[in-house]
Amino acid sequence: MQPMKIANQHLRTITPDPGHQTVEIIDQTQLPHAFSTRKLSTLADAATAIRDMHVRGAPLIGATAAYGVALALATDSSDNALQQAIKTLAATRPTAVNLHWALQRMAACLTPLAPVNRLQSAWAEAQKIADEDALQCKHIGDYGLSLLQPLMPRDRPLNVMTHCNAGWLATVDYGTAIAPVYAAFDAGVPIHVFVSETRPRNQGLLTAWELNNHGVPHTLIADNAAGLLLSQGEVDAVIVGADRVAANGDVANKVGTYLKALAAHAANVPFYVAVPTTTIDRTCASGKEIPIEERDGDELRCITGLTENGRIATIRQLAASTSVSNPAFDVTPAALVTALITERGIVPATPEGIASLFTD
Amino acid sequence: MQPMKIANQHLRTITPDPGHQTVEIIDQTQLPHAFSTRKLSTLADAATAIRDMHVRGAPLIGATAAYGVALALATDSSDNALQQAIKTLAATRPTAVNLHWALQRMAACLTPLAPVNRLQSAWAEAQKIADEDALQCKHIGDYGLSLLQPLMPRDRPLNVMTHCNAGWLATVDYGTAIAPVYAAFDAGVPIHVFVSETRPRNQGLLTAWELNNHGVPHTLIADNAAGLLLSQGEVDAVIVGADRVAANGDVANKVGTYLKALAAHAANVPFYVAVPTTTIDRTCASGKEIPIEERDGDELRCITGLTENGRIATIRQLAASTSVSNPAFDVTPAALVTALITERGIVPATPEGIASLFTD
Repeated sequence: MQPMKIANQHLRTITPDPGHQTVEIIDQTQLPHAFSTRKLSTLADAATAIRDMHVRGAPLIGATAAYGVALALATDSSDNALQQAIKTLAATRPTAVNLHWALQRMAACLTPLAPVNRLQSAWAEAQKIADEDALQCKHIGDYGLSLLQPLMPRDRPLNVMTHCNAGWLATVDYGTAIAPVYAAFDAGVPIHVFVSETRPRNQGLLTAWELNNHGVPHTLIADNAAGLLLSQGEVDAVIVGADRVAANGDVANKVGTYLKALAAHAANVPFYVAVPTTTIDRTCASGKEIPIEERDGDELRCITGLTENGRIATIRQLAASTSVSNPAFDVTPAALVTALITERGIVPATPEGIASLFTD
Repeated sequence: MQPMKIANQHLRTITPDPGHQTVEIIDQTQLPHAFSTRKLSTLADAATAIRDMHVRGAPLIGATAAYGVALALATDSSDNALQQAIKTLAATRPTAVNLHWALQRMAACLTPLAPVNRLQSAWAEAQKIADEDALQCKHIGDYGLSLLQPLMPRDRPLNVMTHCNAGWLATVDYGTAIAPVYAAFDAGVPIHVFVSETRPRNQGLLTAWELNNHGVPHTLIADNAAGLLLSQGEVDAVIVGADRVAANGDVANKVGTYLKALAAHAANVPFYVAVPTTTIDRTCASGKEIPIEERDGDELRCITGLTENGRIATIRQLAASTSVSNPAFDVTPAALVTALITERGIVPATPEGIASLFTD
């Protein structure tokens, strides 16, 4: 079950074909067990890819939605079709704000245009959104590195803990939380990452797969083990991404993030949230207003892996009749966040810190 | 995948045959997928049952070790054989103190006797330990019920959250953390339990199986979801068991307990630890002195469940080469524990509270 090596480290998670007929994505539901790609040809394809988590991660969801609008306009570029496409894509997942940000940007770009001019502009705008995301993540990596370097212990590698996957798979490229890790590793800083499994979808396995491909030392842990490791002084910094940051600095991210923030706070370990500014929702006053997605209980009841023969298989650990609660996100109060790492700089998770990122 | 109904609700987890040749246990590694029992005939059988977690839960580990001494003496009841049996059993698992307590009690009972008299006394003493454990757990249930009743909300059932399995499967009978739940349910108190999966061994599935058999409403959650539910006011009390309580009130329990304690504290929800006094280690000054067992990484890498055809299968979600850290326990500081529920009463998790439980 060796994860396939990716020859090109700068493979992007989403790539339009040059003829603008399709968009290619990595089917992340198959990782780390198999590396396979899918071609999206229609609005429905894009909506399914987001809803069923073939793509996931707030920035990548945003970019996929943008390309989804372009795919929709290929058959009908009327006002009605544009509005319908945006409505369909906006309904796929509730928590990540990049989705709505990207759709608003597409609407703002395309609505004023004559329908006949929309298709080409849609592809150009989606490409711009994707390119900007990659560049923003690169900048997050550089800013994050400046935070990590002073934390370097004398006697062992720098131990960073993360949750879920906020690496390049969650963005167009580079990642958010993992961008500083890649920047540190590429700069020769001895670094090691504690990767939490991230039940129920096990996106920690995606992070481990990424880190393995890049050669970054890492250790997989059960989500439950994070508190012990933090209390034992084994962790120098926690870095996570986010699906939405409220105007007051509250952070919605993959469920379980809040528990790590509590344990980091108790252990006096810095807890950083790495986000492009597109993940900040200034219309949302606090975490209480962020909708928390409840997903299908079978995510918890069933688990996918490899059989002894190396075939991908799904087994059921809980009867279908077992009552399950499966919230996909939780809210970490701003008071537990040491700082936000954005492409525009590092700011405190406060109303003032967040306001300082925006010039308007 | 309906869990088998247990006809006799008062089935015990460990039962000697009347002729004192064997001890029957439930193979808990097969639950909830299959209900099967094993007969232990030798010292080695007992040691394996504890080490490989066919039996688990601090009180049941203690009782199994006691019966293990009896099994060992059947072939050789010399001083040397007695000491060897105790040494072998003591080395099976490091964290649960009931193991050492039960072995010390067996040694204190048997060492002064002539070898020829030891075998019969060993069976009698093991039985006494098992009977006392069941009775202690029943008392824990009654004391716990007195704590739960005042927490009953007006508008919905009482919501209790637990971690791992501290039901009757973890003890000889009744359970520790779940004993108050059973007492409440049997007394007609509307109660519902949030059961956390408890990665990596998924003992939450054992709790769900128990509660289902008893008819107690419950909902399975990912360990990661505990913080959100607590912060949303969905939980009225958290109750867990423990593997060892230090003299200062620090609590070693299944890894992940500490994270729930942090989140309960932040949400101002009471966090109770239900233990027989045999789980209290007065020779251990604080949680720092409690050894934390590191278990095989394959517990995290591989998962067992049922295939579509209903066969038990194990799949691998992580390559054998993936580095894994798998501590089985963590330590919850006494300051986060609202109270200890013991068979002798409810006390604060303080040196004074703990000392008050003992008359010596």
